[in-house]
Amino acid sequence: MPLPAPLGGVIPPVLTPLTPTGEVDADSMRRLTDHLIGAGVHGLFLLGSSGEAAHLTDAQRLTALETAVDTAAGRVPVLAGVIDTSTPRVLARAADAARAGADALVATAPFYARTHPVEVADHFRRLRTGAGLPLFAYDIPVAVHTKLPRGLVLDLAADGTLAGLKDSSGDEGSLRRLLLALRRTTSGFSVLTGSELTVDGALLAGADGVVPGLGNVDAAGFVRLYEAARAGDWPAARAEQDRLAALFSLTEAGDPARMGAGSSALGAFKAAAHLLGLLDCPATAAPQVPLDEAAVARVRTHLAEAGLL
Amino acid sequence: MPLPAPLGGVIPPVLTPLTPTGEVDADSMRRLTDHLIGAGVHGLFLLGSSGEAAHLTDAQRLTALETAVDTAAGRVPVLAGVIDTSTPRVLARAADAARAGADALVATAPFYARTHPVEVADHFRRLRTGAGLPLFAYDIPVAVHTKLPRGLVLDLAADGTLAGLKDSSGDEGSLRRLLLALRRTTSGFSVLTGSELTVDGALLAGADGVVPGLGNVDAAGFVRLYEAARAGDWPAARAEQDRLAALFSLTEAGDPARMGAGSSALGAFKAAAHLLGLLDCPATAAPQVPLDEAAVARVRTHLAEAGLL
Amino acid sequence: MPLPAPLGGVIPPVLTPLTPTGEVDADSMRRLTDHLIGAGVHGLFLLGSSGEAAHLTDAQRLTALETAVDTAAGRVPVLAGVIDTSTPRVLARAADAARAGADALVATAPFYARTHPVEVADHFRRLRTGAGLPLFAYDIPVAVHTKLPRGLVLDLAADGTLAGLKDSSGDEGSLRRLLLALRRTTSGFSVLTGSELTVDGALLAGADGVVPGLGNVDAAGFVRLYEAARAGDWPAARAEQDRLAALFSLTEAGDPARMGAGSSALGAFKAAAHLLGLLDCPATAAPQVPLDEAAVARVRTHLAEAGLL
Amino acid sequence: MPLPAPLGGVIPPVLTPLTPTGEVDADSMRRLTDHLIGAGVHGLFLLGSSGEAAHLTDAQRLTALETAVDTAAGRVPVLAGVIDTSTPRVLARAADAARAGADALVATAPFYARTHPVEVADHFRRLRTGAGLPLFAYDIPVAVHTKLPRGLVLDLAADGTLAGLKDSSGDEGSLRRLLLALRRTTSGFSVLTGSELTVDGALLAGADGVVPGLGNVDAAGFVRLYEAARAGDWPAARAEQDRLAALFSLTEAGDPARMGAGSSALGAFKAAAHLLGLLDCPATAAPQVPLDEAAVARVRTHLAEAGLL
Repeated sequence: MPLPAPLGGVIPPVLTPLTPTGEVDADSMRRLTDHLIGAGVHGLFLLGSSGEAAHLTDAQRLTALETAVDTAAGRVPVLAGVIDTSTPRVLARAADAARAGADALVATAPFYARTHPVEVADHFRRLRTGAGLPLFAYDIPVAVHTKLPRGLVLDLAADGTLAGLKDSSGDEGSLRRLLLALRRTTSGFSVLTGSELTVDGALLAGADGVVPGLGNVDAAGFVRLYEAARAGDWPAARAEQDRLAALFSLTEAGDPARMGAGSSALGAFKAAAHLLGLLDCPATAAPQVPLDEAAVARVRTHLAEAGLL
Repeated sequence: MPLPAPLGGVIPPVLTPLTPTGEVDADSMRRLTDHLIGAGVHGLFLLGSSGEAAHLTDAQRLTALETAVDTAAGRVPVLAGVIDTSTPRVLARAADAARAGADALVATAPFYARTHPVEVADHFRRLRTGAGLPLFAYDIPVAVHTKLPRGLVLDLAADGTLAGLKDSSGDEGSLRRLLLALRRTTSGFSVLTGSELTVDGALLAGADGVVPGLGNVDAAGFVRLYEAARAGDWPAARAEQDRLAALFSLTEAGDPARMGAGSSALGAFKAAAHLLGLLDCPATAAPQVPLDEAAVARVRTHLAEAGLL
Repeated sequence: MPLPAPLGGVIPPVLTPLTPTGEVDADSMRRLTDHLIGAGVHGLFLLGSSGEAAHLTDAQRLTALETAVDTAAGRVPVLAGVIDTSTPRVLARAADAARAGADALVATAPFYARTHPVEVADHFRRLRTGAGLPLFAYDIPVAVHTKLPRGLVLDLAADGTLAGLKDSSGDEGSLRRLLLALRRTTSGFSVLTGSELTVDGALLAGADGVVPGLGNVDAAGFVRLYEAARAGDWPAARAEQDRLAALFSLTEAGDPARMGAGSSALGAFKAAAHLLGLLDCPATAAPQVPLDEAAVARVRTHLAEAGLL
Repeated sequence: MPLPAPLGGVIPPVLTPLTPTGEVDADSMRRLTDHLIGAGVHGLFLLGSSGEAAHLTDAQRLTALETAVDTAAGRVPVLAGVIDTSTPRVLARAADAARAGADALVATAPFYARTHPVEVADHFRRLRTGAGLPLFAYDIPVAVHTKLPRGLVLDLAADGTLAGLKDSSGDEGSLRRLLLALRRTTSGFSVLTGSELTVDGALLAGADGVVPGLGNVDAAGFVRLYEAARAGDWPAARAEQDRLAALFSLTEAGDPARMGAGSSALGAFKAAAHLLGLLDCPATAAPQVPLDEAAVARVRTHLAEAGLL
């Protein structure tokens, strides 16, 4: 389906449900996808960090994406992460995504090898040309250890390389300045924040939408937040954001002495989705340490406090 | 072929020759491999950072590795990098490497997703079990943004998960303490330094060998350095290291205003190998900025000063 | 004067005017202080990063602070930065500040020496006890390379060690969660953001005020922004913030090839204040590279575009 | 006393003995100083990181330095750290040091405020001109978060700004290249490594000496290591270094869950010096967590294993 320009609203980075043996659980994928669309989301982002892309083989990625595209059936656009180390490898991922029917691609700066901004720009231009699909830049320095410079994003917006940006950099000041500059120069470019704890502020600042990992757990809450902001009801937006920020504490369910913050957050999202009946199994991919029973109990408490159980 | 335990000596991280259109140049691969073996190296490390693994597709990696294995023909062991983001993906790379005939695997900590040390250890254990080949840990925080803790390496050495370590962390103090601890607890574990400017000191400290990117340009120099150290002729080792450290300046041939340090170094290694007749074409993979003529001239000067032209 | 609890509003981090030979210019200090109070600010923060505290001797710091306290004459509270490496040195700075008549102190985590969170907490407790003045924590990881953990701030708020927080960490998500937690547990604790490009969002989230370096240039603008937010007029707050964010571009007036970002920003603030007649001389302290004429011209253009000239 | 050019040998960064109430213990300072000189060290470095400079007031620093200068009485040169955030403050520290009779100064790059390399060079030039004493650059990125670029050190060596470098960067490859470049361009410039676990390798590479924190505990060992290297007896140098590297494990005596690595190392050095009768009291300055009894017992075991008790 053609992408709205700009694409806005709530576009959750969809979890990839797994079976106990670590294979993609297509039934749960379908159930989760349907649930999110039913909650009113405006798009789906598959194979991002929350989709455990880094932990999935190419075949598993393809299965997850095809299932989501098939289930979405054109009701909302499907964006596909093409997470890989550098241009030739990302182009291979992009070919897979195009074959699976993705409506747009989401690519990071190269990682593992260090790259100069000139090379980062060339990377995105080669992806746009080579893949033939609308392209979003995924600014996620915590994963790739490069912050996309504001000027680079503006250049790639102006020349049509990029259709939008998913900003997970956490640098809200830079985002503000980007939004200001875009307003003067470009129309139709989509700015989506990945900072799910400050969505009200980002929308107030002019962002088009949000890509919230927590949206897998409470998509309806993010949709309400987005609608309140669109209606200019900032107190309501703030209240909804506060509720969601409290719920976000479930990401710290895991014991930091024995597992990483990423495993804890992802494990908690999946445990919550499982408790909500959206996934058959809360397993995360190896080598992530799974949540133990006490951690799952903490997740359950957070869900109850947020009124979701 | 069975690996020596410990594997020692000079094991260059072999460049991956490319054609002008970015495909693997198998003829040059064969020529380079033959040249290195002829210079007396003790093993080959394919598909590492110097092999541009981050920029090669799976198919290109496989071609490069198969060609090297075929050319080596058992004369020296071939280690294969299995660079990918996390366990399931690395296992897929490992299956490719086994199929191509690699004698051992070299794997980093997971990257992109942040992982806890417990998860890093589990990652290596799953690789050892799943891949069925001797496994070297590749400690390269500049690429993966995780330093392998000394205790973790010792544990994985003691339980047989790891056959060795390629230490590109640059933390020579920690390496010294690791070597001391290994001497007390383990035998046959191979410690290879990737710090090619301080090989004399590392060998004096007890390291088994070196994996020098510059070894693609002057393998014979590193072999002389290694042999001098083995013979206890430290002044000769130091003099050879000094000569190689001066030659290493060629890695700064590129203009830092328009290309990254990685592209400059890799471009210079390839330009030098091309000037020495080892590669048909000095091209590096996209999106790396290529060296311009002035930079290549600087490389040529360094080669001449080092007596290699 | 007794501090409001919580202290809120606009509390600019006051520049320290210098003479061409690098001494504190007390006349300009008085003029600037008077101007800021006249513009409606709610407090003054002396000897912060914008006050060039890191570049001033103890005697110069004392002169600047005494002049500001004397000029403020109780009209607004004066907070004094006590920037030094660790507890005993900060206590010496705190004694100076108390002698000069500061109403409260603003202290960072220890720096230079690395410290454990337990030690950071002990640091603040010793400062509170030893100095006898209300204490604000200054969370500025870009300078001290430690982020104050949210739990630590909450503990020190709960036990009365801290009267407030100046958050210059740029971590707006963590700030949101802190504000939520404080609302449940503590009253009267002041949360001031140093993120001057997202003040509208921070106030929407419940922050009490802002400490904007740009407030030295356009204090009235920040006061309007604050008042709009207090009145719940979020579109007006956003518009004012957008204007200020555009003006903030003056911080990039300097040439990044020959000076640091800090020198450029501070030089631009001082050049702007000089052009506005608030300082006799725009000099910054050694070893900061001064703005050249072209850079000052860029600052002038920004002021004109913002309607300040 | 005039400094040798280059200054070489063992120059320990002298601990600052404290009383139980945190004052400088001049008697212990004298005893420690005498002991180190008696052990054959070639100079003393006061008020460095191991001297807890970051935790001492100006008056305490002055007392420590005056006591050491008085005790040394010209037997060996005394270098004084002048650790402070930026040029004007460091110049004030330098005036103190000159008054106390220091033979040379040791200064870091500015910290807290971020500075451009041009500003760092200007900083050192102003210090050299303003202070009138031989100046050593202290490259310690772990504390100041700036690595001194090799070219900058070479420029400041060539123009006479710097008499030497204390390299605590841990970047042994860059050190090797610096040594090579210095050999071609400059004579009399002193390169001292602070990497106390790889002194044998550094001396083999051509470094002039070492500044080992552990030298407070086993100065005689470092002197033996240095003399072995000077005599070209590299196996003996290596064996001594191995013994010292094993002893260095005492720095990990503290519990990482409740104290920082810096507090553990410094606490262990002081506990060891106390056990050896060199200090009356092992106290470290606030807010460093002190070692508990179990940690002190671990220190004692390490001393015994190294043959020092």
